[in-house]
Amino acid sequence: MTVASTLIDDFTDAVGSDAVLTSEADLREFRDPFAFATWDDYTASAVVMPETVEQIQEVVRIANRHGVPLWTHGQGRNNGYGGPAPRVRGSVIVSLRNMNRVLEINEECAYAVVEPGVRWFDLYDAIRAGGHRLMLSIADVGWGSVMGNTLDNGVTYMPYGVDMGMQCGMEVVLANGDVMRTGMGAMPDNKSWHVYKRGLGPTPDQLFMQSNFGIVTKIGVWLMPYPEVYMPLWLRVRKDDDLAPAVDTLRTLMLDDTIRMVPQLLSATLLASVLSERTQWWQGEGPIPDAEIDRMASELDIGRWTMRFALYGDDAVVDHRFAKIKEAFERIPGADVYGTKCAPEDIPDLEHPVERVQGGVPSMDLNQMAAWYGGEEGGHIGFSPVAPLTGHDALALRDLLRGMIEEAGLDYMAALIPINARSFIHVTLIIFDTKNEAQTRAAYDVAKRLVRDAAKLGYGEYRAHLDFMDLAAEQYSWNDHAYMRFCETIKDALDPNGILAPGKQGIWPKAMRGSAGGRT
Amino acid sequence: MTVASTLIDDFTDAVGSDAVLTSEADLREFRDPFAFATWDDYTASAVVMPETVEQIQEVVRIANRHGVPLWTHGQGRNNGYGGPAPRVRGSVIVSLRNMNRVLEINEECAYAVVEPGVRWFDLYDAIRAGGHRLMLSIADVGWGSVMGNTLDNGVTYMPYGVDMGMQCGMEVVLANGDVMRTGMGAMPDNKSWHVYKRGLGPTPDQLFMQSNFGIVTKIGVWLMPYPEVYMPLWLRVRKDDDLAPAVDTLRTLMLDDTIRMVPQLLSATLLASVLSERTQWWQGEGPIPDAEIDRMASELDIGRWTMRFALYGDDAVVDHRFAKIKEAFERIPGADVYGTKCAPEDIPDLEHPVERVQGGVPSMDLNQMAAWYGGEEGGHIGFSPVAPLTGHDALALRDLLRGMIEEAGLDYMAALIPINARSFIHVTLIIFDTKNEAQTRAAYDVAKRLVRDAAKLGYGEYRAHLDFMDLAAEQYSWNDHAYMRFCETIKDALDPNGILAPGKQGIWPKAMRGSAGGRT
Repeated sequence: MTVASTLIDDFTDAVGSDAVLTSEADLREFRDPFAFATWDDYTASAVVMPETVEQIQEVVRIANRHGVPLWTHGQGRNNGYGGPAPRVRGSVIVSLRNMNRVLEINEECAYAVVEPGVRWFDLYDAIRAGGHRLMLSIADVGWGSVMGNTLDNGVTYMPYGVDMGMQCGMEVVLANGDVMRTGMGAMPDNKSWHVYKRGLGPTPDQLFMQSNFGIVTKIGVWLMPYPEVYMPLWLRVRKDDDLAPAVDTLRTLMLDDTIRMVPQLLSATLLASVLSERTQWWQGEGPIPDAEIDRMASELDIGRWTMRFALYGDDAVVDHRFAKIKEAFERIPGADVYGTKCAPEDIPDLEHPVERVQGGVPSMDLNQMAAWYGGEEGGHIGFSPVAPLTGHDALALRDLLRGMIEEAGLDYMAALIPINARSFIHVTLIIFDTKNEAQTRAAYDVAKRLVRDAAKLGYGEYRAHLDFMDLAAEQYSWNDHAYMRFCETIKDALDPNGILAPGKQGIWPKAMRGSAGGRT
Repeated sequence: MTVASTLIDDFTDAVGSDAVLTSEADLREFRDPFAFATWDDYTASAVVMPETVEQIQEVVRIANRHGVPLWTHGQGRNNGYGGPAPRVRGSVIVSLRNMNRVLEINEECAYAVVEPGVRWFDLYDAIRAGGHRLMLSIADVGWGSVMGNTLDNGVTYMPYGVDMGMQCGMEVVLANGDVMRTGMGAMPDNKSWHVYKRGLGPTPDQLFMQSNFGIVTKIGVWLMPYPEVYMPLWLRVRKDDDLAPAVDTLRTLMLDDTIRMVPQLLSATLLASVLSERTQWWQGEGPIPDAEIDRMASELDIGRWTMRFALYGDDAVVDHRFAKIKEAFERIPGADVYGTKCAPEDIPDLEHPVERVQGGVPSMDLNQMAAWYGGEEGGHIGFSPVAPLTGHDALALRDLLRGMIEEAGLDYMAALIPINARSFIHVTLIIFDTKNEAQTRAAYDVAKRLVRDAAKLGYGEYRAHLDFMDLAAEQYSWNDHAYMRFCETIKDALDPNGILAPGKQGIWPKAMRGSAGGRT
């Protein structure tokens, strides 16, 4: 009997044979869906699917005994950043898709408690089924895990999407198999676990986001009571450089609390990718020329930049704010702001998927842009640096990214996402046809060049694709990589055998540093 | 030459002789001002006052060489929780009072960057001097350190006082003398250090709050642009049990964003302590009887509970919200809500210090309540558990705390502070005459009984006094103290010699666990 089969036997004993997958057909589902078919840098050797905290503890203990790396996900929908695939080839994926209970919905204090596999769809359905007049801030695509998105610092769009607004209280299985509760949950039967964000002493919750220090098994999620009125809004500006005054106006309106949610400023190319086929606009070589983008925007009646956003609140307040917003943005020549109020009960009936998403109603409708190049299986890489929410930073990043992406023969497609009143994430969707190996390779290559060049201008990634996690982390080098050395100290203390997600966001356990990756 | 004098020589070499204090007279200033005069459990052996990051690094290296514990403060105004005094007798205090530069005020993105010794007064003055139309969310007493308050999870009252709203970006000297920047600051010359709350990978900022894992040397502080209108407000309710509907109404108004700041619900006894002398109302034995509290409230024309709060925003929105708030609270029989709008420019001229504090204008006016018992040097201990923001939890905590405090012969004086829409900190001010040893001892003793009894009901402290930090931490015992074991693992990894603030919030380094304190 080989070591490997002993390992699989141990996992089978822990979670049952139905919950251990090893066949090539089964494993295919856990590859990066946007990688070229023959690439196998990030393939797992097995998938285990525990359903309880105790099973996770046992899986972790087995991994320690065998020295095998684990890679955890809630649903594994981390598309654009590597999907469900592990950083280290041969890792065992711990898929928590079947650990999907909504453990509590508290109407009085407006929160839910979820397990890792709970999807946006599931929590939304549970809230509706319970008759709660509560709204959930969701991501664009409904199949993702609430917890998975949270732990990767993913974005949602309602007021609790701002900064770290939504999560409160956490349970974590540590690398030694121990289980810990954070905040007030560290006290047995404490009543404030999911209402107060701290406990006594340091608050470790953020330490388990974008890291490999533990496997999170429960989080509290704050929900928003139904407002009197919901008003999805659209801003269109006509010229490419109108991005600057649009961003400056937006910052002012977010700083003074007129807009409190997470908008998206979409380039015409990106919005067109959900409304049309690329071949409609351009069949020549290389990226779509500027004049064709103008034509496209005009014919589709979208802005050269279009902002999706929304207001939530009392009818009178929403009216006041809408008038103020419209007046402020329409000072930009050619710009317009429009939208229609509705009652929260009517959000599921709205036609536009974006207007439903910003109102907390999940769907799969926004998962289609990747077909831009006409391939059957379009893919994208997210390159996503952060910048101050100012017009000059927006133009500086646009110019850098557009220049380099077009130089690589691809279209510049951008969503600027102000995660708070002072900063935005410039999500650059590098879109390619995954059946075209050369184009896929070009996309990966340009993404890596962007990591270095954006860092030189002072912009760092908020989240990194598997294929350049090390490179992205490498840019955070202040004082001889003091931050990474700190992360490594924590990693080695908590996970001396290095079994939890080695390489995640560039953090490697001691035994693997310098060989598999990371700093030497 | 003794080891001790070598130590002092080393410190003197590092920071200069003027910045090393060892005389008894000098050290007196760094005692807990509210401890009884002869108590010496928490006295320091020396104070060093570095003025630069490099000096702090050198002080930390010296402490490692000599194995001497350090205890750091910004200003040391942690009154009610031990003031500037260290947990371990003989520790060397690292006082950062002289490291007090405002390093930057950014008008465009509305933030400041401060060193540890910057007081509320200093930052307020710097903002005014620069002509910035920006407001700072402040604590009640202006002499405290902005950073010190932040690192102890202290409370401020404007919108950025909610949860962890205000701090963004951090620089920390670690126990090994290394210096690290968090978030985007981990990338050299990154532009988003003080505008985006994370970086790439885990976010460690909260790990340096209420802990002993590092010495923080810089933080970013978010400021609020002047609103059109500021409206300080007062709610009075007439009966003791009106606390319940007041809290339930408040939760609804905070959850729907009508009130977004940090209010205080004050017991009549607490408010009376700033408006009058205790002897005016009661000269008998034991605590003031209930009927006398009613009489006091009536004669002072204050509520049995009085809430201080405020609105900030556009004139029309403030008007709408005021009408809504007034209507909601005045459903409680006898309750009234009142206040007067003003322009932000006029806040410094407001007569009531609370109305200035909620408007970001610091003073020393709210530092007087401790004289309640008529002693020259009144003191207080803060006992401060957290509870869900519901009427039933407010009454449950009130009944527990009032019963026990009155049983000890003291007056129940409470400020309920909703730190967000879902939870409040019940700050119980146990007030005593520090010249009266028996009364001081009784206050300490009852605080300790409260720690255990509140925990039994599911309420834990948000912050603990030096004298019962271990006891408070001991209550966070879920899964055999998993959280504390986690903190100890981090502590031992980052600070193997245990030189940084041993015992802080119950976290002890390996060598001292079980002997000096903490878990065995």
